[in-house]
Amino acid sequence: MTYCLAIKVNSGLVLASDSRTNAGMDHINTYSKMYAFDMPGERCFVMLSAGNLATTQAVINLVERDLEQNAPTSLNTVAHLFEAADYIGNLSCEVQRQHSGGTLRSGVNLETTFILGGQIGEQPQELLLIYPEGNYIAAPPSKPYLQIGEIKYGKPILDRVVRPETSLGDAARCALVSLDSTMRSNVSVGAPYELAIYEAGRLHLEHRMLLDIDDPLYVDIQQIWNKALIDGINALPQFDWEAALRPPSAG
Amino acid sequence: MTYCLAIKVNSGLVLASDSRTNAGMDHINTYSKMYAFDMPGERCFVMLSAGNLATTQAVINLVERDLEQNAPTSLNTVAHLFEAADYIGNLSCEVQRQHSGGTLRSGVNLETTFILGGQIGEQPQELLLIYPEGNYIAAPPSKPYLQIGEIKYGKPILDRVVRPETSLGDAARCALVSLDSTMRSNVSVGAPYELAIYEAGRLHLEHRMLLDIDDPLYVDIQQIWNKALIDGINALPQFDWEAALRPPSAG
Repeated sequence: MTYCLAIKVNSGLVLASDSRTNAGMDHINTYSKMYAFDMPGERCFVMLSAGNLATTQAVINLVERDLEQNAPTSLNTVAHLFEAADYIGNLSCEVQRQHSGGTLRSGVNLETTFILGGQIGEQPQELLLIYPEGNYIAAPPSKPYLQIGEIKYGKPILDRVVRPETSLGDAARCALVSLDSTMRSNVSVGAPYELAIYEAGRLHLEHRMLLDIDDPLYVDIQQIWNKALIDGINALPQFDWEAALRPPSAG
Repeated sequence: MTYCLAIKVNSGLVLASDSRTNAGMDHINTYSKMYAFDMPGERCFVMLSAGNLATTQAVINLVERDLEQNAPTSLNTVAHLFEAADYIGNLSCEVQRQHSGGTLRSGVNLETTFILGGQIGEQPQELLLIYPEGNYIAAPPSKPYLQIGEIKYGKPILDRVVRPETSLGDAARCALVSLDSTMRSNVSVGAPYELAIYEAGRLHLEHRMLLDIDDPLYVDIQQIWNKALIDGINALPQFDWEAALRPPSAG
């Protein structure tokens, strides 16, 4: 499994991913699921992936080859972010078709879902989710985030915190908490975590972080967050019946 | 869908449920999913259900009939909570078998999962999850809670807060937050919410609550909790790169 998420706030984008891959319980590995294509001053793209690892790597290989060979269509030629999504969606469908003969027999699922974030020239920054079928959707305006993979555990915190006016720092903290909540509930999601922070209008990816489970910053975040939740529960209104409870026994 | 959960702390049990049922998107209804069987001074049981509504109602009808008719086996005769789980599991399997001929053709799923909490005489209070197959498990000792139905959205808060030494009040607040987080993410889970609070050793269910979406207490809890989370994210450590961010533009 995998958990990736991306948040679009007025001041920029935060993209975050775990790094655990598994093909069965006894074949667990660590792979990055974040791919950045940075053409400073002109355009900047970050991709996240969830799904078949071979499909993902094949798509990334093709994206890189098209850039190197100055192909007629590449991340360097597309004029809008939706065209980049179209291009990646087409590559993904092509790769899946190419191998579908071999996997029909084995029952392996070749599908991969991508999140694409970035900005081209003077156009607005954008965040798109590209389905295995090659079509795509934008992040919703009022709750501007997208998730792929094991999305449920980490969703409530995003629903409660993320708004267009949220700061980039808070969005990144929220992304880490969302990853941490998921990792605690599903062993197939795991550290290290990668974060990319894109400032709107920069046309260059300046901030990337790699956080492992024993990184002091991550340990701090976990501890402070746990305490905030316990204190938060404790600060909610008391119930009428609490006054009538027996005092806790010494045992 | 449904979301029910139960928490066992040293000082007692909290059982909580939503009340939305649906057979398709255009057939949504409100039913209680909580059933209490209280024999004050002797024994006390609370059941929660997730799954087929007809199976659930049939099982509850049989449990009530067996009590009225002083049947050889009933909630009044079992000597341990695990025997009560066995009895309910058997009834559930029987009901499913009885109707399986008719539903094989329609593809309807007859399964129901139950949570059973309670205490019999001087035995310890217990919390059991009864599978549709009739077998059952106890809540784990270190994170003593059980969930049925749409369990993922509301799980992280339980993992972070619930411990054996958590107070009954905090456990009930945590259950409400867990329900609220789920309701926000899944339209097939909805208020009113029911809570039963059982004090260990009481052998009587003294505290029950029914909270609808516009109940002032529930509105308060939602607002205070939302603020606590936003403040909590804001109180997490700052990242190095935040100092280097451009100040937000006036636009």
